[in-house]
Amino acid sequence: MTASASRSLSGGPECPAPLAGDRVQLGHGSGGKLSAQLVKDLFLPHLGNDVLGQLGDAAVVPMVGIELAVSTDTFVVSPIEFPGGNIGSLAVHGTLNDLAMQGARPRYLTAGFVLEEGLPLATLDRVVAAMARAARDAGVLLVAGDTKVVERGRADGLYVNTTGIGALEADFRPAPDLVRPGDVLLVSGAIGRHGMAIMAAREGLSFRTAITSDSACLAPLVERLRAASPADVHALRDPTRGGVASALNELATASGVGVEMDEGSLLVPDDVRAACEVLGLDPLYVANEGILVGFVAPAAADAALAALQAHPLGRDARVIGRATVDHPRLVVLRTRLGGSRVVDLLPGDQLPRIC
Amino acid sequence: MTASASRSLSGGPECPAPLAGDRVQLGHGSGGKLSAQLVKDLFLPHLGNDVLGQLGDAAVVPMVGIELAVSTDTFVVSPIEFPGGNIGSLAVHGTLNDLAMQGARPRYLTAGFVLEEGLPLATLDRVVAAMARAARDAGVLLVAGDTKVVERGRADGLYVNTTGIGALEADFRPAPDLVRPGDVLLVSGAIGRHGMAIMAAREGLSFRTAITSDSACLAPLVERLRAASPADVHALRDPTRGGVASALNELATASGVGVEMDEGSLLVPDDVRAACEVLGLDPLYVANEGILVGFVAPAAADAALAALQAHPLGRDARVIGRATVDHPRLVVLRTRLGGSRVVDLLPGDQLPRIC
Repeated sequence: MTASASRSLSGGPECPAPLAGDRVQLGHGSGGKLSAQLVKDLFLPHLGNDVLGQLGDAAVVPMVGIELAVSTDTFVVSPIEFPGGNIGSLAVHGTLNDLAMQGARPRYLTAGFVLEEGLPLATLDRVVAAMARAARDAGVLLVAGDTKVVERGRADGLYVNTTGIGALEADFRPAPDLVRPGDVLLVSGAIGRHGMAIMAAREGLSFRTAITSDSACLAPLVERLRAASPADVHALRDPTRGGVASALNELATASGVGVEMDEGSLLVPDDVRAACEVLGLDPLYVANEGILVGFVAPAAADAALAALQAHPLGRDARVIGRATVDHPRLVVLRTRLGGSRVVDLLPGDQLPRIC
Repeated sequence: MTASASRSLSGGPECPAPLAGDRVQLGHGSGGKLSAQLVKDLFLPHLGNDVLGQLGDAAVVPMVGIELAVSTDTFVVSPIEFPGGNIGSLAVHGTLNDLAMQGARPRYLTAGFVLEEGLPLATLDRVVAAMARAARDAGVLLVAGDTKVVERGRADGLYVNTTGIGALEADFRPAPDLVRPGDVLLVSGAIGRHGMAIMAAREGLSFRTAITSDSACLAPLVERLRAASPADVHALRDPTRGGVASALNELATASGVGVEMDEGSLLVPDDVRAACEVLGLDPLYVANEGILVGFVAPAAADAALAALQAHPLGRDARVIGRATVDHPRLVVLRTRLGGSRVVDLLPGDQLPRIC
């Protein structure tokens, strides 16, 4: 299980309760504790193997002398179209980013559609166009596809799976379990935009400024980091479902380190903050689709930060914290007021169907 | 587009009418003319490239000195469980078979689930177990996965995408456009079982014998053919959506040959024939998930047939026709009564949601 599902394999500091009830709940797809539980208690007993058990965003598959990275992700975002993109561009960015976080150079993509009878062809056309544009811009080739149609009321417009293949090299292999105490925690930009763009579109909220999703391919940013100091980039993650809070929890658990984050250094756009307040959400848990968090060796932190800032996507890159020997596997937020609180995984959905 | 979608790129002898209406219809997912039209008029203008334009079941992607085969397929079969398998085993077999038809040795699989809120966990457990068993039996590794959950009424139990990666070698490269006049047409077993098993389960039909899906991994059969005479195996196809009739049409079109098929040599199990009569269906158009059709050079036909028959899955293998220089791009059935009729592609769904 890649993406949040595989990351959730690392579990959290607490052990979730055994599977409750006998039916799938919405929270099982949330990327939080319920997802982790489903993977641990149901999928892994059947499917577990060394590759699937890796905690990365993409599977590393040795093959005739080289190693490929493979990642799969199904997109069910509602609404299909939103400020800053649609399900097509999102499906390309999301899967390519999973490859990039593993240190792979994305090369190939597949797309599998489930279409609901009655979906306007014009909508589908826009989605496919956005997908094509995103793939072209990223320099990847969509190499296989499949389309199924189901009856009205058996889907919600359309769903799309993308699977990506990337090339891995030995000199650049960031991984979730390679964070070391002292590593500097970087984020490449403002947080919370994708999730709140979706929520605002879904709820018909109108703010003074329309919130735009940050959906973007992060591979160019990763290339900059790689060029700056490949061996010092210890772990990378795109904080999608579950937001920065969940991504950092997963890295902390995988590496057995504590993470300290400074609230004051996080960039939350005003419109995101306002929308979060209206809806009672914490921006730390809101999905992003165009930023990365990374842990780099202290000596390389300045160079890594400069490398990110030199790219338009990383213009707002900043240091937001560090890895510690204290409170292993816990993420602690130092608040603006000088206090601190533990930032835990959420049990289930804060925002369903966000990707 | 792999599977029926990519094959349909070859079109049919007639040119379909332009896209009618402005909405997706069920027939757009059928693998027939409407599917081909959607691919040609909507997907390819955006996404077309040399790899996607190949007519095979799996994409061939050159990568650092070797070539991979990649195939993706989303499964929406209803019901989820049926005699002979469930959506999990089907999703493994279907994608591995697409790789095998390309001459690739299947190696890796990914799985992307869309689960409907309220799906019994016990059902999901059976599906995942069947998936694991099928992958293990085939000797492939499931290397990445993803799970999404949508609200009740936004799916139909569960859908699953599988994407497969296989290894290709230069000495064995059957392809849809390599059929030559004179080639012998083989089929590895009885036709119509998968589609009629689904229809019988769906309609609650009860026949004296329950029809069992033929769902199976065909890679071992392909290995036998390869061992027998690799250069003489010109084209292979698993006749899934649209059945043997559609598969042969696609090969005839891709290779520019005519195909003659002898009705009397086709093996249609009695229960399949009876169910087809009740429902007014033609077994030639009914989906199979555990047989292959192949065109082999005449000199190698006996060896190829013997190779198939030596494996349990190919026990009922037989010669059912040949490729001709006559009526290029048309499939003609020589009937038991000595007549002949053209076997064309269907415009849309004979059987929706069969895979």
